[in-house]
Amino acid sequence: MTGPADTHLLLRAFADELGRCAVAGACTSPGSRSSPIVLALTADEQITTWSHLDERVAGFFALGLAKATGRPAVLTCTSGTAAAQYLPAVIEAHEAGVPLIVITADRPPELREVGAGQAIDQIKLYGDAVRWFFDVGTHEATPERGRWIRTLACRAVATAEGRFGDRPGPVHLNWALREPLIPPAEMPEDPQPGRPDRAPWVRIGRAPVAAGNLPDALMSARRGVIVAGGLRDPAEAELIVEFARELCWPLLADPLSGCRSGDAAIAHYDAFLRHGAPATPDLVLRVGDLPTSKPLRQWLASFDGPQLAFGEPGAWADPDGVLTDVIPGSPGSLAGVMLLLGQPYAPPDYPLAPADPGWLQLWRDADDAAARGIATALGEGLSEPTVAAAITSALPETAALVVASSMPIRDVETFAPVDAPARVLSNRGANGIDGTLATAFGVAAGHDGPVAVLLGDVAFAYDLSALLCATRHGQALAIVVLNNNGGGIFEFLPLSTIDRSTFEEHVATPPGLEIAKAADLYGCDHVEPADLPAFHAALEAALASDRTTIIEVRTERAANVALHREVWAAVSAALDTR
Amino acid sequence: MTGPADTHLLLRAFADELGRCAVAGACTSPGSRSSPIVLALTADEQITTWSHLDERVAGFFALGLAKATGRPAVLTCTSGTAAAQYLPAVIEAHEAGVPLIVITADRPPELREVGAGQAIDQIKLYGDAVRWFFDVGTHEATPERGRWIRTLACRAVATAEGRFGDRPGPVHLNWALREPLIPPAEMPEDPQPGRPDRAPWVRIGRAPVAAGNLPDALMSARRGVIVAGGLRDPAEAELIVEFARELCWPLLADPLSGCRSGDAAIAHYDAFLRHGAPATPDLVLRVGDLPTSKPLRQWLASFDGPQLAFGEPGAWADPDGVLTDVIPGSPGSLAGVMLLLGQPYAPPDYPLAPADPGWLQLWRDADDAAARGIATALGEGLSEPTVAAAITSALPETAALVVASSMPIRDVETFAPVDAPARVLSNRGANGIDGTLATAFGVAAGHDGPVAVLLGDVAFAYDLSALLCATRHGQALAIVVLNNNGGGIFEFLPLSTIDRSTFEEHVATPPGLEIAKAADLYGCDHVEPADLPAFHAALEAALASDRTTIIEVRTERAANVALHREVWAAVSAALDTR
Repeated sequence: MTGPADTHLLLRAFADELGRCAVAGACTSPGSRSSPIVLALTADEQITTWSHLDERVAGFFALGLAKATGRPAVLTCTSGTAAAQYLPAVIEAHEAGVPLIVITADRPPELREVGAGQAIDQIKLYGDAVRWFFDVGTHEATPERGRWIRTLACRAVATAEGRFGDRPGPVHLNWALREPLIPPAEMPEDPQPGRPDRAPWVRIGRAPVAAGNLPDALMSARRGVIVAGGLRDPAEAELIVEFARELCWPLLADPLSGCRSGDAAIAHYDAFLRHGAPATPDLVLRVGDLPTSKPLRQWLASFDGPQLAFGEPGAWADPDGVLTDVIPGSPGSLAGVMLLLGQPYAPPDYPLAPADPGWLQLWRDADDAAARGIATALGEGLSEPTVAAAITSALPETAALVVASSMPIRDVETFAPVDAPARVLSNRGANGIDGTLATAFGVAAGHDGPVAVLLGDVAFAYDLSALLCATRHGQALAIVVLNNNGGGIFEFLPLSTIDRSTFEEHVATPPGLEIAKAADLYGCDHVEPADLPAFHAALEAALASDRTTIIEVRTERAANVALHREVWAAVSAALDTR
Repeated sequence: MTGPADTHLLLRAFADELGRCAVAGACTSPGSRSSPIVLALTADEQITTWSHLDERVAGFFALGLAKATGRPAVLTCTSGTAAAQYLPAVIEAHEAGVPLIVITADRPPELREVGAGQAIDQIKLYGDAVRWFFDVGTHEATPERGRWIRTLACRAVATAEGRFGDRPGPVHLNWALREPLIPPAEMPEDPQPGRPDRAPWVRIGRAPVAAGNLPDALMSARRGVIVAGGLRDPAEAELIVEFARELCWPLLADPLSGCRSGDAAIAHYDAFLRHGAPATPDLVLRVGDLPTSKPLRQWLASFDGPQLAFGEPGAWADPDGVLTDVIPGSPGSLAGVMLLLGQPYAPPDYPLAPADPGWLQLWRDADDAAARGIATALGEGLSEPTVAAAITSALPETAALVVASSMPIRDVETFAPVDAPARVLSNRGANGIDGTLATAFGVAAGHDGPVAVLLGDVAFAYDLSALLCATRHGQALAIVVLNNNGGGIFEFLPLSTIDRSTFEEHVATPPGLEIAKAADLYGCDHVEPADLPAFHAALEAALASDRTTIIEVRTERAANVALHREVWAAVSAALDTR
């Protein structure tokens, strides 16, 4: 028979195990039904908690927290539409392979589907977007159930981490809670305390890595090209940089890969591939997600030699159907890269072809020419491209940069230089602009160093209420808003040629917000630099500030399109005069 | 073989049929993939379109539009997390029986699950929360497919309306779109134009109503009580009012029922039932949703005589398991009420028991005593209860009032007088506070008259970005914010007795926003009346204004709890001296 303390005892044991498994932290939201979960999480000294009144914000915050730390982040909310608010972030986490542990409070069975308040059908609410759904039920706090619930917590963490062979991703535990919803004044002792020395109840390891057979094409390739898109683990990115340098293979590195550094890194492929590749490789090796660049994708689609990629369960990144070989395993997985490097799991006679520095130089020349063309066309004015270049070069190694999908991520890909030291993050699982600010605040919660955000005014207006993190948590972000009053990316599409009134109202959707007033509402500093030196100064001050600063850069959508076209023409001219 | 115009021809035919079926309007959001749908809807002269950059706002706006008009509202967005943003509103519509037609743009099959941008799994994205999911696919614009797509539109509307016997609710059409995403300059003629005289392609009727057998208990009851909760159709509410008056049965009417009027209406049941019912009926008849009042629910749970309710497919409203008879049919359905009234479908010898005015008087006396107690305790000061009473009595018959879940809906239920003329609406399907402002703007889009909103500061902060409707659509709302800086409802719960620091941070979650600055950001007027007469003046001015006005009333959470307790004591005293 359950007593008033049982639920609370089991929840505390569950929270204890989450802490022992080193989750990144927990995001709570207000509610009555969920209060036992919130109380258990906040009472646990191992877990940092973050309160959010908007569950959509909480969802993206947790996503950012997990991305920044590489550890699962916990989300908990009350029953009803609160749980539905998590769906956008859950889908992004699913697509991007980010570990989340979603714990939704629910009514017990006798209060479901009988018209009781705030009760909806939460069973499998997130469909196939979670790695695991489990309906926890209600239990007596016996030692047996204590062991069961502690094990359940460890399994949830390990499943979110992808330790059983799946990709990392979200898991969903739906937790029925009966009254009383607050613990008794005198809590009985835990009938099943945790293991000694703060060990998790059950240690769930990682599958041992066996040496795989590498495709023959890779063994014999001499003039390869590596295309590196978004990677989850910065440490693995370093191995890829080293691998490319050793082989003298050009490394076409999206800033999201963390690989845009070293002698082999090529930055401006988006710019020069519009005019063709400098030469044809004998192999393309893809690591990580596909970069955003359309010219790069078109070039990959047109290349009919061997193309290799790593393949994870449930994910497949080849819209053009041109891959010839897939190596099962995480794209940035340690095992995969070490195999390529020939240490320590590769066969001892692993026959890497000898490096050909001339091959790399062909690509370096194109990259340098593109850089010259870009510099000529852009000049020193304040524009969306110069801001994208400036912010990536100015941020120190300790910093992280969160970039909105749509134009900012494309401009960062095109214009960020090689060796920009800061880590770049973006929600490229489902490419939504929703939740950009909340994600950035979550990154700031997990990142050890300053965090900047680059986003447009539509993404800013969309996620405005995430700015409550600045006041409620006292968090400091450097937020750069490219304000062209509307969705600038649509101006690049044939869509922009339709009736302009419909285009403005239904496609560009100018928010018309005064950014300074938004800053004032949420207690943020606001600055509008007049030129590029002033932008640099503002960014430096914002990074050093203990308050959130919004740096507004006003641009015009039509002028921005024209400027991009000038860049492409200048790159073409520079390539011609190589 | 499909040509560049085919998709656009079929979408225009589909939009044409939506217009012929008299949908309430369509909400769009920006995107490239969805642009063919947006262009077809905006080009159709029968359909009013509303642009929203945040799909969550769009979802609740459409919900409000459908509630206000009783007609299905259309929602369309691009692929990816945009579609996930609709889930909270879709769930509320599912639970509350509100017709929505959700059209999500999707990538065609060859661009799904291959790493193409902004592609997620949209198949059955809303799970069991929609009445119908259909994956439309891509098609040639032949006359045969023209007929098929026109029929599909009519079926979507009729399914959302519940014409096939289910409750009204959301339907989801997932529409794969291939490039080119804009129509050719010269559009060919529609291969299958619509029917003459703007008739829908297929007229889908309503099931003929047959006379049912009424439970014996109803036939013989003499001292019945009617409990009326939220009803969807104001016209049907009037029949219930008439029925109660004819039988002299007290009508315990939640303001959401539209039945709190006429001689039989009882307003303050929440107040006096805390101290017991004035007498025991021989029958309880429930119509509509269960009201929110906890004392009412407890009294219903304790009453062991016959309790009757109407039952709709998929909905069951009896958390305490005390119903004795269920009459299948919509609670406010015309047929059901007419049967009760004995006209015209009831058997000719329908034996209604003779009315007993003394029975009603017992309840009227209790209601009057409660009203006196309330008036004594509240006085004429500005407080959450006096604002709830004032706004409901002051709004004219032409107005509609949208009330947030949590405290405002409870205060309106407790304190609104009989015969307050305005229609009252609230999201009580899943009882979320999310989307309250967006719902209200949607109501304003569909309601012929002024619209006011009553909500707390947490709900206001949650849905702040919906205020873009004030500027982007030029909509005028009278928004009354009860600002007690936090979730006031939680102060009434045992939860408020926990550690206050945890309570404040994780349960009360004070947003700390200056409402005046929020008003300024979104171009709204702001006024903070100092007393009740000033509140009335501000409300009157706001209702007459063509701009959105935010009326801020500052209160304190602890004082509000104390005031409610004073009211209950005063009601008890007034009941004792009847």
